[in-house]
Amino acid sequence: MSMKQITTIPEIRQVINSLKKQDKKISLVPTMGYFHQGHLELMRYAKKYSDIVVVSIFVNPTQFGPNEDFNSYPRDLKRDLDLAKQVGVDIVFTPNIEDIYLPNHLTYVEVEKLPKVLCGKSRPTHFRGVATIVLKLFNICQPDIAVFGQKDWQQLVIIKQMVKDLNIPVKVIGHPIVREPDGLAMSSRNVYLTKEEREQAPAIYEGLCLVKKLCARGMRESLALKNKLIDYYFRNIPLGSIDYLEIVHPFTLEPLDEIKDKALVAVAMYLGKARLIDNILIEVEKNA
Amino acid sequence: MSMKQITTIPEIRQVINSLKKQDKKISLVPTMGYFHQGHLELMRYAKKYSDIVVVSIFVNPTQFGPNEDFNSYPRDLKRDLDLAKQVGVDIVFTPNIEDIYLPNHLTYVEVEKLPKVLCGKSRPTHFRGVATIVLKLFNICQPDIAVFGQKDWQQLVIIKQMVKDLNIPVKVIGHPIVREPDGLAMSSRNVYLTKEEREQAPAIYEGLCLVKKLCARGMRESLALKNKLIDYYFRNIPLGSIDYLEIVHPFTLEPLDEIKDKALVAVAMYLGKARLIDNILIEVEKNA
Repeated sequence: MSMKQITTIPEIRQVINSLKKQDKKISLVPTMGYFHQGHLELMRYAKKYSDIVVVSIFVNPTQFGPNEDFNSYPRDLKRDLDLAKQVGVDIVFTPNIEDIYLPNHLTYVEVEKLPKVLCGKSRPTHFRGVATIVLKLFNICQPDIAVFGQKDWQQLVIIKQMVKDLNIPVKVIGHPIVREPDGLAMSSRNVYLTKEEREQAPAIYEGLCLVKKLCARGMRESLALKNKLIDYYFRNIPLGSIDYLEIVHPFTLEPLDEIKDKALVAVAMYLGKARLIDNILIEVEKNA
Repeated sequence: MSMKQITTIPEIRQVINSLKKQDKKISLVPTMGYFHQGHLELMRYAKKYSDIVVVSIFVNPTQFGPNEDFNSYPRDLKRDLDLAKQVGVDIVFTPNIEDIYLPNHLTYVEVEKLPKVLCGKSRPTHFRGVATIVLKLFNICQPDIAVFGQKDWQQLVIIKQMVKDLNIPVKVIGHPIVREPDGLAMSSRNVYLTKEEREQAPAIYEGLCLVKKLCARGMRESLALKNKLIDYYFRNIPLGSIDYLEIVHPFTLEPLDEIKDKALVAVAMYLGKARLIDNILIEVEKNA
């Protein structure tokens, strides 16, 4: 089938119902649009593991704080539709904001604990907005699988928790971070960077790789590792300022004093107009 | 098909999936068991409007407060199964508490505003627990329709709001209150009543009917109507004590100073060990 753009909830419900009757396996890639290669990789992955790929494009107001970039978030629907078509997406769902949030909207999904750390500290209502829109999109699109990027690791952990706790019949898949050739994690917000900021940005990931290397060499205390990372950023990203820099358990997101087996090193940094996030998973061999 | 009792989530998912493939219309009647005629009426109603009736029996801990009657809530599974069978229920779903709430459960559905009034005042976490378990049961049983009693009017309003806000593909139906011959609203908690308390209990509904009659005769000020009702209860239910007594808009649940078109008169009363609720809908003719 050729790619379809659908805007209304009743229409997508009808199309999905008819596909389900034909026993098609449906995947959903929820996005806020302004696609980069990272998004396209999620779509390619979804295509490999389902019969029908649905990509939603919706800049979700409830996940932005009052002083965040909801209004200025980059948008380019025409380009997004072209790219989705090139990748072989079947349906692009582009709902109107008024249809998604009715005037008297009152219901939110609250996940406890997990949204209080990392990005949740500076974005206290962000994950409530994310969980709520993702559940809405799941209920509208009824996918069998849904694919999210691991760049938003905390988001992925929260969505998986929500799916498990609420018995949502969707398999949630995390896709590895897609990076620019110089290592910078792809993000729609990278367009905010000036030339100078963009030149320093790859050091975000370089620093994470340094931590991984130091850990492999035997440095396991979080405090020592974080100090090394702060120092690295101070020297290599003078234009940036760290929002947070944490070493946590990858699934509970609880801070670790010491890396014993698995750990996630996660960072958020303000760089000019952009707030960029990145992370790296560290797995220490048990008998190391 | 003869009635099936199913206990595990994977098994009910499998049975429901296979019924859905046969295009069966599925209804769900979520209950906490200890059936009375009110429950059975919901089941009969569900049977009329679907091919397969699923009744869940689960005394949901998250909707009970710390000092409430979770442990002593009446239970009689064997009798419930017999009654359900007599009514022609197809599936009784009796999950274990450990399967419903995993050790690390963190996710809740929060509806704003509506749970803060009426029963929510004395039961501050009740409706969060209700909304969460209902969404879980919807996700597990995937019904086309779900039937709830109007005795729990506030619950019905909150569930309808949740369904609308989260785009849940379930049609929620409210069934009129089923009453004993003397007018007492049927409730599993009526078994808590002593003989004397039981004799006074029908006056709960009589008082509501009095308000409706006074309203029809032209008394429209909530304060005056509530005073009449308090007075009626004081004289006729000396063993009772009022938890709340409110005249509210039936859909927004906002208190009304005056009855203009529609109103809900809702009451909760402690009577011995029981906390009983009841309500009556009043509709004033526009040109009256």
